[in-house]
Amino acid sequence: MTSANYYRRPFCKAAAIFCATLLLGVTAQAQTDPLPSWNDGAAKRVIVAFVTDTTTAGRPSFVPEAERIATFDQDGTLWVEKPIYSQVLYCLDRVPAVVKERPELANVEPFKTVMSGNREAIARLHLEDLEKILAVTLTGMSVDEFRAEAVKWLDSARDPRWKRPYTELIYQPMKELLSYFRSNGYKTYIVTGGGQDFVRIYSERVYGIPPEQVVGSAGATKYGYGKDGKPFLTKEPKLLLNDNNAGKPEGIHLMIGRRPVVAVGNSTGDREMLEYTWAGGGSRLSMLVLHDDAVREYAYGPAQALPESRVGTFTQALYDEATNSGWTVISMKNDWKRIFSFEP
Amino acid sequence: MTSANYYRRPFCKAAAIFCATLLLGVTAQAQTDPLPSWNDGAAKRVIVAFVTDTTTAGRPSFVPEAERIATFDQDGTLWVEKPIYSQVLYCLDRVPAVVKERPELANVEPFKTVMSGNREAIARLHLEDLEKILAVTLTGMSVDEFRAEAVKWLDSARDPRWKRPYTELIYQPMKELLSYFRSNGYKTYIVTGGGQDFVRIYSERVYGIPPEQVVGSAGATKYGYGKDGKPFLTKEPKLLLNDNNAGKPEGIHLMIGRRPVVAVGNSTGDREMLEYTWAGGGSRLSMLVLHDDAVREYAYGPAQALPESRVGTFTQALYDEATNSGWTVISMKNDWKRIFSFEP
Repeated sequence: MTSANYYRRPFCKAAAIFCATLLLGVTAQAQTDPLPSWNDGAAKRVIVAFVTDTTTAGRPSFVPEAERIATFDQDGTLWVEKPIYSQVLYCLDRVPAVVKERPELANVEPFKTVMSGNREAIARLHLEDLEKILAVTLTGMSVDEFRAEAVKWLDSARDPRWKRPYTELIYQPMKELLSYFRSNGYKTYIVTGGGQDFVRIYSERVYGIPPEQVVGSAGATKYGYGKDGKPFLTKEPKLLLNDNNAGKPEGIHLMIGRRPVVAVGNSTGDREMLEYTWAGGGSRLSMLVLHDDAVREYAYGPAQALPESRVGTFTQALYDEATNSGWTVISMKNDWKRIFSFEP
Repeated sequence: MTSANYYRRPFCKAAAIFCATLLLGVTAQAQTDPLPSWNDGAAKRVIVAFVTDTTTAGRPSFVPEAERIATFDQDGTLWVEKPIYSQVLYCLDRVPAVVKERPELANVEPFKTVMSGNREAIARLHLEDLEKILAVTLTGMSVDEFRAEAVKWLDSARDPRWKRPYTELIYQPMKELLSYFRSNGYKTYIVTGGGQDFVRIYSERVYGIPPEQVVGSAGATKYGYGKDGKPFLTKEPKLLLNDNNAGKPEGIHLMIGRRPVVAVGNSTGDREMLEYTWAGGGSRLSMLVLHDDAVREYAYGPAQALPESRVGTFTQALYDEATNSGWTVISMKNDWKRIFSFEP
């Protein structure tokens, strides 16, 4: 990856030199560095140059404000996804309550295994098992009941390693990046394989992203009336959007209707979103977060040749596609001064 | 409908009198009337009072800016829907091109009838026929191809009565209303039974509503790669969201994730959206546009006891529900000084 193709841009070398000169002048802004948790490495330079180029009127790389859409994967991109997705933990924690209501499930797999409390057996459950658990724990209640349950869980559940609520395990450099894009007229979206209704509960508080800018895996709802005559929506066990892989650009088209200018992910589940963004022509930025910091967080994917997760991770093939395409790889180890806001 | 229940609000009489006093003071703003195409009737007073009450900090009726969501039906609410929805005309106009590509359809109904050009026979087509026509003319191409075709049609097609592009048949009072809400921190959405991809093409230009704030009937798309290796999305004949009736609150939950504070519609297809909005508690405004102006536009629904449309119109039952609930009815004849921007 040479400095000439660090992002897709339509302007010539002379313009690039002109911009570089301008950028040097911008170092006077260093006192108010918008990305203080980022080391002054290649990734940060690419980001700052891209934002400057796309928001400075008159440049060929300029992007009108209405088109400044930046989409961010959540799990592993904005917050910790290991050892297991937080929302899957929520669903596992919900199983006892569901079995209490529906005792016939107690002796049926995979619920039997979950009820056993055997952590190793639970960790060995297959994707199909998890899907059964998700279907049973995320549907059949009103959207308001779901919200109340999830809020309670988010308030009380703690990550076993950091002993903190999951919503504190947000990457501080990414919070700064979201704010930096927004303060430059970008509309920031989460585009997650996780449940849309789940992420929307805390997205505003945690990321500054309103619910209507969260695209995620989504089930159907059904409109009906309560005994009091008041209308309400029930969560149905019918999947409308599986917002992973090809589902990400499809979900972006459905929910946003514009091709992003910026996309950030960390796994094979984000590949199509990054490709789709990059293929839009003009100024585009596709970035991948590489989990290569075994000390401060986790190392997996090509960095450490750890076993791949079931759903998708940062494979060597993805790394090669990023390098060959000119996408930007963010090394957690090298590019980030700190990982979490609660760390010094 | 008394003045006390013109919209749902949680504050007491004393506060209401206080507000009314403040409103009197606001008449100084009359020089810059934000709704110049509205007569000074009940509807306008309700709207101005509601906006003032929900945006004035400290009032019990105050709504934080993040929650100010206003949803508008399109056909018959923002633009003319008679004698037939514009998008259906687009689909009918597309039939010859589709039959040319797929000659086997020429002798199959309903395509045979459409190809005959017999306007009366076309007008008699059933909903199932129209659905077949929509499926064939709106799917099977890339989203970019669809956009290019629709843009061409929107530029060239003319309404037979006003001899103007359909995108000029927007109700001027509603354009002012959209701007008025937006200038008071409301996020305006279109929530239409029409095709989301179709409306998104002109929503920004015509209504000032960006594509990501258009919720409509939506089909699935499929991600794939062209011969050049570039990814693209194909429109598939699979309906994800039928954004009519109960589909409107369901679509709002899917695409916005918040209950609207304001909803405006004109037909039974909007009933559930208006109910759902109204049932949210706190400050809410549900409004219905009554087509009672046979001279300047059309009169249908209870105003003239015209035959009801196939898809839904303003029935007597809806009128009664509006009156009993305390929703606001907007009379095109009495509340609007003018209908279109091109009229004096």
